[in-house]
Amino acid sequence: MSAKGYAIHDTSKYTDFKLIDYKLKEQGDYDVDVAISHCGICASDLHTITGGWGKPDLPLVVGHEIVGKCTKVGSKVTEFKVGDIVGVGAQISSCFDCKNCKNDNENYCPDWVDTYNAKYPNGEKTMGGYSTAIRAHERFVFAIPEALEPRHAASMLCAGLTVYSPLVRFGAGPGKKVGIIGIGGLGHYAVLFAKALGAEVFAFSHSDRKVDDIKKMGADHIIVTSKENYAKEHAGELDLIISTVDVASGVDLNNLLACLGVHKHFISVGLPDEPLNGVSPAAFINNGCFFGSTHIGNKKEANAMLKLAADKGIKPWIQELPMSKVAEGVKAVKEGHVRYRYVLHNDIE
Amino acid sequence: MSAKGYAIHDTSKYTDFKLIDYKLKEQGDYDVDVAISHCGICASDLHTITGGWGKPDLPLVVGHEIVGKCTKVGSKVTEFKVGDIVGVGAQISSCFDCKNCKNDNENYCPDWVDTYNAKYPNGEKTMGGYSTAIRAHERFVFAIPEALEPRHAASMLCAGLTVYSPLVRFGAGPGKKVGIIGIGGLGHYAVLFAKALGAEVFAFSHSDRKVDDIKKMGADHIIVTSKENYAKEHAGELDLIISTVDVASGVDLNNLLACLGVHKHFISVGLPDEPLNGVSPAAFINNGCFFGSTHIGNKKEANAMLKLAADKGIKPWIQELPMSKVAEGVKAVKEGHVRYRYVLHNDIE
Repeated sequence: MSAKGYAIHDTSKYTDFKLIDYKLKEQGDYDVDVAISHCGICASDLHTITGGWGKPDLPLVVGHEIVGKCTKVGSKVTEFKVGDIVGVGAQISSCFDCKNCKNDNENYCPDWVDTYNAKYPNGEKTMGGYSTAIRAHERFVFAIPEALEPRHAASMLCAGLTVYSPLVRFGAGPGKKVGIIGIGGLGHYAVLFAKALGAEVFAFSHSDRKVDDIKKMGADHIIVTSKENYAKEHAGELDLIISTVDVASGVDLNNLLACLGVHKHFISVGLPDEPLNGVSPAAFINNGCFFGSTHIGNKKEANAMLKLAADKGIKPWIQELPMSKVAEGVKAVKEGHVRYRYVLHNDIE
Repeated sequence: MSAKGYAIHDTSKYTDFKLIDYKLKEQGDYDVDVAISHCGICASDLHTITGGWGKPDLPLVVGHEIVGKCTKVGSKVTEFKVGDIVGVGAQISSCFDCKNCKNDNENYCPDWVDTYNAKYPNGEKTMGGYSTAIRAHERFVFAIPEALEPRHAASMLCAGLTVYSPLVRFGAGPGKKVGIIGIGGLGHYAVLFAKALGAEVFAFSHSDRKVDDIKKMGADHIIVTSKENYAKEHAGELDLIISTVDVASGVDLNNLLACLGVHKHFISVGLPDEPLNGVSPAAFINNGCFFGSTHIGNKKEANAMLKLAADKGIKPWIQELPMSKVAEGVKAVKEGHVRYRYVLHNDIE
């Protein structure tokens, strides 16, 4: 079966999308075919098509915040049937057999397969969701609750899950104080979900441009990092910080770490193109804190997140575009003009 | 009351110790006076007297692995009496009142007072253990079990506790695999204590010079990092890594992090003079691991460590020198010629 998608052919022309036809992976017994109705534009798409994370395998169709209708299921699929509204996120496969896969950590499988710009063990190349269709093993397909509109569910599957997983794994909930750095696509989900989980939310923003929005998202406190002597004022206060900033120079790490309580975690889910430099080991000693990162989330977390969003009526703040205008959306994301996620709806004929 | 100690007057002459007389802090109701019999030489002493951690307050007497006999107690002291064998480690005071102090995290009190090169709130300067005497609040004084020789207990109070605390706080025990990077003063304690706690110990050493020693210390596995493709072989295997290396360039962080399991911790208790550069956020994503540090340990942990050492007959590997030869010991530590801790015994008249 083939698909038609918007591909990039040259990293120096990362808005020059051209429609191409390509074959989906070979049909497997556990595979689900999805006719894509919506796909979010993730910063990962930009890092990939600009070559920031290394030279991609071109031509490439990106996009990993995918929702659509199930059109076919393999003979052993049990979770889905034709007609179901389903989603696919940033991971399309794993080895299914390692310690991590067997412990609901398939998102940390050493042989995980990304939804695009990756290869299955048999060499088949993965292509993303700026496209008419995708085929995926049912473990990496999520049921979209009826109460969630597909356009709202789409960007939850990478942006939402990437912050939801560390929030729940590191204890965001009643009585806990959670800092969120960078209120963009991921950050606005972090505020929405941390609040929905019952935590007290401290939103850190480098300017006051977004203050009104952040209040409406429900943050309990807004800290404008360019204005306040926040490291002193909030020293030792937070139980968790999630940073969504994806430029290494944009993270005032030494001051932010000081806001954590003893042995608490700073989790950078933003993945910069450049390494972090000048990290002072002394910054970790005062409170015995930790820096690290997490990788999306597992299926159970994805399902729990979708249920939470459905139950609590959580809607992301999105801007919609037809897929034919993908270049416009990608350019806006690259330039930082997005409030807070672009979602493409499919108009490929 | 005054003391007599070996002081450094110039960071460029960090082996030029001169005996000076100085006053101890003002006597407090909770203070314990200690006639020092032994003091270990810690790498912190070197970082301080060479100016590596910044310009120290000279002249300065360093040393924070102190054991001696209690010679006087304040009117409200309940834990100790004259004649007790007691110890003092790297922390001499705290605020006693903050959230951390009240939660057995006095070692993370924002106002902690270091045993030397620091100031009490009233401005009195702290001086260390290359000296005849020290005076400390009983909270920061430890009872040395009878079964432990003072010369063996001394270096436990910084080197030992600095690794014991993160070992117990991060789960070293039966069924857990613990990596120890850098088998020097702290590292050899980490091997001894991790084994005593029941963990499976992986000792990482950059050369094979110490392999025979490390086997005798009880490590289950020895990984010579200059020889083996260890990151691949041990990927995802370890539950905890404690690094005692105190030079930033000596830590192959990107490879070592790969040896950790999902969400496990790399704890650098070595505190380099220089910042870490080139830390790739991508290195944290594959296993969702964390980098951080911890600061010595609390009193309960110190007492538990001393009891463990007494119960299991754990003896550190030390070299002894009279305090009058402190320069010789300090020079050997600076040059890396120490197996595995120098302990000074007092010969000041």
